[in-house]
Amino acid sequence: MIVIENAEDMCRNTIGKPRVLVPTMGALHSGHGRLISHARSLAGPSGMLIVSIFVNPTQFGPDEDFEAYPRSPGEDQSLCVAAGTDILFQPTVEEMYDEEASGSHYTAADSGLITTLCGPGRPGHFDGVCTVVEKLFRMMKPDIAVFGKKDYQQLAVISKMTRDLKLPVRIIGAETVREEDGLAMSSRNRYLNPQQRCQAPAIYKALQHIKEHGAMEASARIMSAHEIITKEAPLGKISYLQIVDRQTMREIKTIDRPALAAAAVHFGKARLIDNVEIGPIPQDNE
Amino acid sequence: MIVIENAEDMCRNTIGKPRVLVPTMGALHSGHGRLISHARSLAGPSGMLIVSIFVNPTQFGPDEDFEAYPRSPGEDQSLCVAAGTDILFQPTVEEMYDEEASGSHYTAADSGLITTLCGPGRPGHFDGVCTVVEKLFRMMKPDIAVFGKKDYQQLAVISKMTRDLKLPVRIIGAETVREEDGLAMSSRNRYLNPQQRCQAPAIYKALQHIKEHGAMEASARIMSAHEIITKEAPLGKISYLQIVDRQTMREIKTIDRPALAAAAVHFGKARLIDNVEIGPIPQDNE
Repeated sequence: MIVIENAEDMCRNTIGKPRVLVPTMGALHSGHGRLISHARSLAGPSGMLIVSIFVNPTQFGPDEDFEAYPRSPGEDQSLCVAAGTDILFQPTVEEMYDEEASGSHYTAADSGLITTLCGPGRPGHFDGVCTVVEKLFRMMKPDIAVFGKKDYQQLAVISKMTRDLKLPVRIIGAETVREEDGLAMSSRNRYLNPQQRCQAPAIYKALQHIKEHGAMEASARIMSAHEIITKEAPLGKISYLQIVDRQTMREIKTIDRPALAAAAVHFGKARLIDNVEIGPIPQDNE
Repeated sequence: MIVIENAEDMCRNTIGKPRVLVPTMGALHSGHGRLISHARSLAGPSGMLIVSIFVNPTQFGPDEDFEAYPRSPGEDQSLCVAAGTDILFQPTVEEMYDEEASGSHYTAADSGLITTLCGPGRPGHFDGVCTVVEKLFRMMKPDIAVFGKKDYQQLAVISKMTRDLKLPVRIIGAETVREEDGLAMSSRNRYLNPQQRCQAPAIYKALQHIKEHGAMEASARIMSAHEIITKEAPLGKISYLQIVDRQTMREIKTIDRPALAAAAVHFGKARLIDNVEIGPIPQDNE
């Protein structure tokens, strides 16, 4: 028997049988597979691994790809079984957003964290993310939840929400999984035609260049990263390419603290995002 | 792998590894022991059994026995171990009521359920109960919570709160455990001197009499129950002796539906309560 005095102790995976949640929107690829396997190891043999699949309408803008978002329920189930999932949670939109069942509850993202990167281009997106994640936490009651670092700003927003609302869940960020040529795995890569697919790795190459570039000034690094994408991915349309403080998600001019270089690039209807951490990586984020 | 579509499915103990919580105020006796063992069987070998011990200040009135309430942490731990507890949650008052840690959150009991029995005599009591139980549910994240039927009104109030707030917890009521002479086990029995202890079983005897009495009119049954207590427990001071609708907790004049006969009797500083169900017992309540 273990004696504990607070909710945090219930969330540490050293105690008992942790419940670990991996929230996804389905269309699972081997990046998700790696994420889910990592979650399985956090849960341990006695813990419980829950994967949720829900394409959340409230995090898509009116001109975004909610309807077209790839769905592959059969393959998703096989991947979940293979990765050791105990419970697959596949709610309907009605289940998640029925007024009677869950109240008309709405959770806003911390406004300070969404002035950069995906924030300005996707108004309401992170509020939708917080709303659905808070609901998932309430319904599935995880001790630990694992999110991919590819959506780094989402990870920051969810971590902040969890702290602000004192939700008894430990948030873990899992490393981005990449194709052999460096392209970050994403369900939206399915949208790419062969030409676009050939050019898309330029995003990661540009971000790596920012990381390895010697200059302290962010602007110089960004400029040469821009050049890489323009030159190697002429089919790509840069939505943003920024260096931000990894804690605050605020743009920085000088890279003198833990930073993040992040980009969003459109290839046709596919909006791809990626990022790399610059500077020390906090221990808890894996 | 199990596929589920809603939070209720997570709460059914047939699925996976349920987490079962038994909230207590400590000073555990063998009635608690039976309750905890029942919870262990609900959790099964793979589930997790959590017992919380917290003497909750907000459910005691200013003239009640918060300071004097019996505390026996050493014995409590031994009993919890013996009953198969996985996690013993023993928070401090600061942990439960620190503004920073948990917010100044306050949960009110359904006012309709507390116009009878312990409601009028203990203003604020059930609000305190709801507040702490809602916090415990939030912190410990149980799928199932077990409460004793000795506090039947409390069970009704918590069940209502759980439904109203759509808390993903299944509430189970466990049968009252009695001494050989019929006295309901209670931590407050420790307050009784030998004489009082000899007379206290009259409460249950009177309630049983109500149950077995032939008359449909509640008043006739109550009158003879009163007589039993007055005659056999002259040291007792009746606080209430009522027959209520088991769903609504409203007083009824005619016993024509599932009812509850309940009493509170003071013996010196010990306020003892007890009850018996009259009529069909719903399946889910055990």
